[in-house]
Amino acid sequence: MSKVGVIMGSKSDLPVMQEAIDILKGFDIEVEVDIVSAHRTPDKLFDYGKYAHERGIKVIIAGAGGAAHLPGMVASLSPLPVIGVPVKSRNSIDGWDSVLSILQMPGGVPVATVALDGAKNAGILAAQILGSSDQCILDKIIVYKEGLKAKVEESAKNL
Amino acid sequence: MSKVGVIMGSKSDLPVMQEAIDILKGFDIEVEVDIVSAHRTPDKLFDYGKYAHERGIKVIIAGAGGAAHLPGMVASLSPLPVIGVPVKSRNSIDGWDSVLSILQMPGGVPVATVALDGAKNAGILAAQILGSSDQCILDKIIVYKEGLKAKVEESAKNL
Amino acid sequence: MSKVGVIMGSKSDLPVMQEAIDILKGFDIEVEVDIVSAHRTPDKLFDYGKYAHERGIKVIIAGAGGAAHLPGMVASLSPLPVIGVPVKSRNSIDGWDSVLSILQMPGGVPVATVALDGAKNAGILAAQILGSSDQCILDKIIVYKEGLKAKVEESAKNL
Amino acid sequence: MSKVGVIMGSKSDLPVMQEAIDILKGFDIEVEVDIVSAHRTPDKLFDYGKYAHERGIKVIIAGAGGAAHLPGMVASLSPLPVIGVPVKSRNSIDGWDSVLSILQMPGGVPVATVALDGAKNAGILAAQILGSSDQCILDKIIVYKEGLKAKVEESAKNL
Amino acid sequence: MSKVGVIMGSKSDLPVMQEAIDILKGFDIEVEVDIVSAHRTPDKLFDYGKYAHERGIKVIIAGAGGAAHLPGMVASLSPLPVIGVPVKSRNSIDGWDSVLSILQMPGGVPVATVALDGAKNAGILAAQILGSSDQCILDKIIVYKEGLKAKVEESAKNL
Amino acid sequence: MSKVGVIMGSKSDLPVMQEAIDILKGFDIEVEVDIVSAHRTPDKLFDYGKYAHERGIKVIIAGAGGAAHLPGMVASLSPLPVIGVPVKSRNSIDGWDSVLSILQMPGGVPVATVALDGAKNAGILAAQILGSSDQCILDKIIVYKEGLKAKVEESAKNL
Amino acid sequence: MSKVGVIMGSKSDLPVMQEAIDILKGFDIEVEVDIVSAHRTPDKLFDYGKYAHERGIKVIIAGAGGAAHLPGMVASLSPLPVIGVPVKSRNSIDGWDSVLSILQMPGGVPVATVALDGAKNAGILAAQILGSSDQCILDKIIVYKEGLKAKVEESAKNL
Amino acid sequence: MSKVGVIMGSKSDLPVMQEAIDILKGFDIEVEVDIVSAHRTPDKLFDYGKYAHERGIKVIIAGAGGAAHLPGMVASLSPLPVIGVPVKSRNSIDGWDSVLSILQMPGGVPVATVALDGAKNAGILAAQILGSSDQCILDKIIVYKEGLKAKVEESAKNL
Repeated sequence: MSKVGVIMGSKSDLPVMQEAIDILKGFDIEVEVDIVSAHRTPDKLFDYGKYAHERGIKVIIAGAGGAAHLPGMVASLSPLPVIGVPVKSRNSIDGWDSVLSILQMPGGVPVATVALDGAKNAGILAAQILGSSDQCILDKIIVYKEGLKAKVEESAKNL
Repeated sequence: MSKVGVIMGSKSDLPVMQEAIDILKGFDIEVEVDIVSAHRTPDKLFDYGKYAHERGIKVIIAGAGGAAHLPGMVASLSPLPVIGVPVKSRNSIDGWDSVLSILQMPGGVPVATVALDGAKNAGILAAQILGSSDQCILDKIIVYKEGLKAKVEESAKNL
Repeated sequence: MSKVGVIMGSKSDLPVMQEAIDILKGFDIEVEVDIVSAHRTPDKLFDYGKYAHERGIKVIIAGAGGAAHLPGMVASLSPLPVIGVPVKSRNSIDGWDSVLSILQMPGGVPVATVALDGAKNAGILAAQILGSSDQCILDKIIVYKEGLKAKVEESAKNL
Repeated sequence: MSKVGVIMGSKSDLPVMQEAIDILKGFDIEVEVDIVSAHRTPDKLFDYGKYAHERGIKVIIAGAGGAAHLPGMVASLSPLPVIGVPVKSRNSIDGWDSVLSILQMPGGVPVATVALDGAKNAGILAAQILGSSDQCILDKIIVYKEGLKAKVEESAKNL
Repeated sequence: MSKVGVIMGSKSDLPVMQEAIDILKGFDIEVEVDIVSAHRTPDKLFDYGKYAHERGIKVIIAGAGGAAHLPGMVASLSPLPVIGVPVKSRNSIDGWDSVLSILQMPGGVPVATVALDGAKNAGILAAQILGSSDQCILDKIIVYKEGLKAKVEESAKNL
Repeated sequence: MSKVGVIMGSKSDLPVMQEAIDILKGFDIEVEVDIVSAHRTPDKLFDYGKYAHERGIKVIIAGAGGAAHLPGMVASLSPLPVIGVPVKSRNSIDGWDSVLSILQMPGGVPVATVALDGAKNAGILAAQILGSSDQCILDKIIVYKEGLKAKVEESAKNL
Repeated sequence: MSKVGVIMGSKSDLPVMQEAIDILKGFDIEVEVDIVSAHRTPDKLFDYGKYAHERGIKVIIAGAGGAAHLPGMVASLSPLPVIGVPVKSRNSIDGWDSVLSILQMPGGVPVATVALDGAKNAGILAAQILGSSDQCILDKIIVYKEGLKAKVEESAKNL
Repeated sequence: MSKVGVIMGSKSDLPVMQEAIDILKGFDIEVEVDIVSAHRTPDKLFDYGKYAHERGIKVIIAGAGGAAHLPGMVASLSPLPVIGVPVKSRNSIDGWDSVLSILQMPGGVPVATVALDGAKNAGILAAQILGSSDQCILDKIIVYKEGLKAKVEESAKNL
C-alpha cells in the first residue's frame, strides 16, 4: 500500500505538522511519521532520503523552520516528490527565512512548497499526488472539495 | 498515456515556461501546452480546471506573474495536483507579488509552488509525481539526478 | 436603487468587512452581503461576477486574506468597479500576501485596492463612486468629511 | 459631459501616466491633464483638490513616486473618488515607497490604489466608475473585456 | 524665545510623541503641541505650515502613522527644518508604511526622519538644531550625552 | 562663519554626496569635505566627531552605504545635529541595509535621515538648520522653494 | 588561558546574550562580560576594540539591536575575529535593522553574523574558533554535536 | 600547516568566491578549493563535512546562492568553524533567499555569515580565526588594517 512519509526537523514542529497527518488519515492513507533533523542528525537524513522510495513511500512531506534545509536536502537525496512546509519557528524573521530556504531551490532539485505553516495543504497535496494515479483517492478528493463548498454555503446562509 | 498540462497566463510567460516543457519532453512525457488567463479568459479557465482530469491529464503546471491567480484558481477547480510557477513579470515588485499570490493558498486548496521563474523544477516535479506510481519514470529521475552529480564533478575537476 | 455588493472569502473576514457595511448603511446606501470563496465555491464566484451588474449592483467590495484571489477574479468577470480589501488572515506573512495578490493586477483588469484591513475606506470609496453621479450622496460625503475635521479639532482642544 | 482629471507629481511621471490618458481617450472620455506637485506646488494642490468636483470632474487619477503624497492629499481635499498610481521613480526603494505611501491611507480618506506603474488600469477603473451610472460606458467596458479575451485566444492559437 | 512645534496626525499618536515633548522640556525649550491631520484637517495643515516660522517656531516635529503625509506636507509648506517621526499605528504593515512615506521625500523637500516610534530622538535632534546656534543648549546636550555614558557605566558595574 | 561638514565613508560615495555640496554652495554656505571611514579609519572618525563643533562646524552631513555606521558613530561623538545619507552601494541589498543602519538609531543618539541617495535633500536640510537662526539663509530657502514651484508650473504649461 | 569577550550595547540585551555566556561556560571557556555601547560610550568602545587582543582575548562576541553598530565598530578596531549577534530590540522593525546593520559590512572588515537573537550559536562558534587550534575544545564540540543528535533521536522515539 | 577549505555550490559561484581565495593567498595561507553541491552531490558533501578536520583544514568557507544549504549542511557535519557566503545567484529574489537560508541557522549549529557576495570578508575572517592562535597571521591582519587606513587617507588627500 502507498505510504506518505511525514518528517519534521524538531518535535516543536509537531503541532503544525499534525494537520498533514490528520488530513491524510482522513483520506485513509498510511502515514509514517519521524523526526529527522538536517542539522543535528545528518546521517539519519541521508538514510531517510536515500531509501524512502525503497520502503514503499510514494511522497515525502518535510516541515522545518528558520534556515530550513530538511525539505531541500531530502529532495536532493530522494527521487520521490518532496513537499516542503515552511514552519514559523521561534526567532524566525516573520517566517521569511523558512519560506525562502524551502522555496528557492536551484534548478534540478524541486521542492513542492506550500504556505507558511500550511501543513494541512501539504497533506491534501500528497493525497492529490497519489490520486493522480489512484481513482479511489481522486474520488475522495472530489468529495472533499464538495465538502469545502458546502461549508462556505452553510456559513453564507447564516450571515 | 499520462499527460502533463502546462498552462500560462500570457504568451510573455512562454520563455520561462518553455523550460518545463523541455524537461518533460526529455523524460518522454506527453505535454499539452495552452494559454489560459485567469483574468482575461475566465470561462476558458473554468473549463480547463473542471475537465482537465477527464482528458487524461495527471498533473497541471500553471505559470503566471504579478497578482498571479491562475495556479490557485485551477487548483480550486481541479482535483489534480497543481504546480505553480511564479513568473517575474514586467512591473512586478521584484517577484514578491507572484511568489506570495501563488504560495500562500488557504487551507483546503494547495498549490505546489516552485522557485521564482523555476519552470524547470516544475517540470521535474511533475515527472516525480508521475514517477511515484510509474517505475519507468522513477528510474529516469534517478538517472537524471546521476547526471546532475556528474556535471558538478566534471566542473570540479576543471577548477 | 443603487446597491453595493459586499462579498468576502470566508466568514472569518466578517469582523473586518463589517466596517464597510456599517459605513455604507450610514450613508443610506443599500448593501447586499454574501460569502463567496474563490477557492472553495468557484461556481458561485462565476455567477456572482457575471451577473452582479444585471441585478442593480453598481460597485462590488471584495475582501480576502492570504493568496487573495476573490477581488481579482470578480474584477475579471464583472464590468463593474471592484474594490479589494486585503485582510490580514491567520498565517498571513504580515499581510504582504493579501496586499500584493490584490494590488498587483495585470493591465486590463483593475482592482481598486485599499489599505490592509481597510474595509471602512472601501465603504467610503464605494459611496464616492456612487456619489460621482449622485449629488445627494456626494453631499453626504462632504458632510462626512466635515465631521472628520470636527473630530480632530475637538481632540486638539482637549490636549 | 463627465471628465476625468489626470494629475501627476512631476513631468517625469508622464510616460507612465500616458497609459491612463490613452485608455480613457479610447473610451471617448474627456480627460484633463495637469502637473500638480504636493511638495513643490502645495497651493495648486489645494485649489485642485477643493474645486475639481465643481468643474465637472467626476473621478481623479493621481500618480506619484517615492514618498507619494499627491493621491492621498487630493483625496483629503476632494469628495470625488481618487485613484492612486504608484510610480517607480528614480531612487525609489524598488517601488515599495510609492506603493505604501499611496495604499495605506488612514480610515476616513480612501485612495483606490492600482498596481505599481499601473496607469492603464487606473484609466480602466475610472471608466468603470463612470460606467457604473452610464450604460454607454459600461457597454464599452464589456466590449473592451471581450477584446482582452480575443487577444489571449489568438495568442493561444499561435503557440 | 525659540520654540519647537510638535504636531501629530491623531490623538492616538500622543503616547509616542510625548517623549519628544518631555525631552524638550527637560532642556528648558518651549514646546507648542497641536493635532494637525493632513488628511482630515488640510486647511489647518496649510495654515500651520505656512505661518509657523512667523510665530517664533524654529523647528517642527511631526509624527504620523500609516501613509504618513503630515511631515512631508509641512515640509512642503514651511521653510523650517521638519523632523518626521514614523509612528507604528494600528493596521500598519509592521511600520514600513510610515517609515517609507516619511523618509523617501523627493529632491527639494527634505524631512529629517528618525527611527520608528523614535520621538525621543526627534526631541533631542530639535534641541541639537537649536544648539547649533545657541551655546547654552549645546552645553546641555553635551551634559546629556555625559549622562547617557554614566548610565551605561553604572549598568556595566552592576553586571 | 557657519560651516557644514560633509563626510563620506568612501570616495565611491562622492558622486552621490556631491549633490549636497553643490546645493550648499548654491546657498553660499561654507562646506568642508572629507573622507572618514568608520570601519577603516576609526581614529580619524573619533577626532572628527569629537572636535568638529570646536572648529566652527554647525551641522554634519555623513553619507555611507551597506552596514553604514558613519552617521551614527559621528552622532555618538558630536553634540551637533548629524544628517545621514543612506548610499546605495555596490552589493547593497537594494539599499535596505544603509537605510536601516542609519535610520534606526537607539534612543539618545539621533541621526536626521534623508532618502536613499538623497544627498541633495541633506544639503537643503543643513541649510534649513542654519536658517532656523539666520534670517538671511531662511530667506534664501524661501526663494529656493519659490523656484521649485516655478519649475513645476513651467513644466505644466508645456504639457 | 584563552578568553572570549562578550559585550553588548545595553543591559536589556543580557537575556539574549546570556545564552552565549552559558554555552561557553559549559565548554569550560573563560568568558569576560561587559556592557559597551557604541553610541553612548564611544571611548570605552575604542579602548575595548583596540586592546582586547592584548589582554588575552581571542574571540569577541558583540550583541546589539536596532541600528547595531557595536559589532562592526569593534571589528573595525580589533584584529580579532568578531561574532555579531543581531538582537531584536523594542521598536525594531522586526529585527531587519539589527540583522542588516551587522551583516552587511563593507569589504575589509568582516563580522561573523549569526541568526537573530542567536547568541547560543555565537557561543558555539566562538568555541569552534578556539577549537580550530585546540584539540581539547574541538573534542568537546564533537561531543556536543553527538548530544544534539541524541536528543533528536530521543524525541523521535517518543513520538 | 593550517589550511582553509573553500567550497562552493556551483562553478558559477567562482567569480564571487575567488575574492576569498585571493585574500587568503595574500596572507600566505594555504587554500583548498572545491565544488561541492549540497543538492546535486550530497555524498561528496557528506564526505567533505565529516572528514575536513582530519585533513588539516582549520576553517571552512562555503558559498552558495538561492536556497543555500551548503554552508549549513557542512556546519552540521563538521566540528570546524564554517563561514557562509550568500551569493546573489540568477533568479535570486534580490539575495534575500541566500542570506536568510545561511544566516538563520537553528540553535546548536552556527554558520558565521558574511555580507551578500562578501567572499573577500570571508577570507579575512578565516585569516582572523587562524590569527587568533597564530601571532604571525595576527600581525599580518594588523598590517592589512593599516593598509585599509592608508588607502582611505590617500583618497581623502586627493579630493
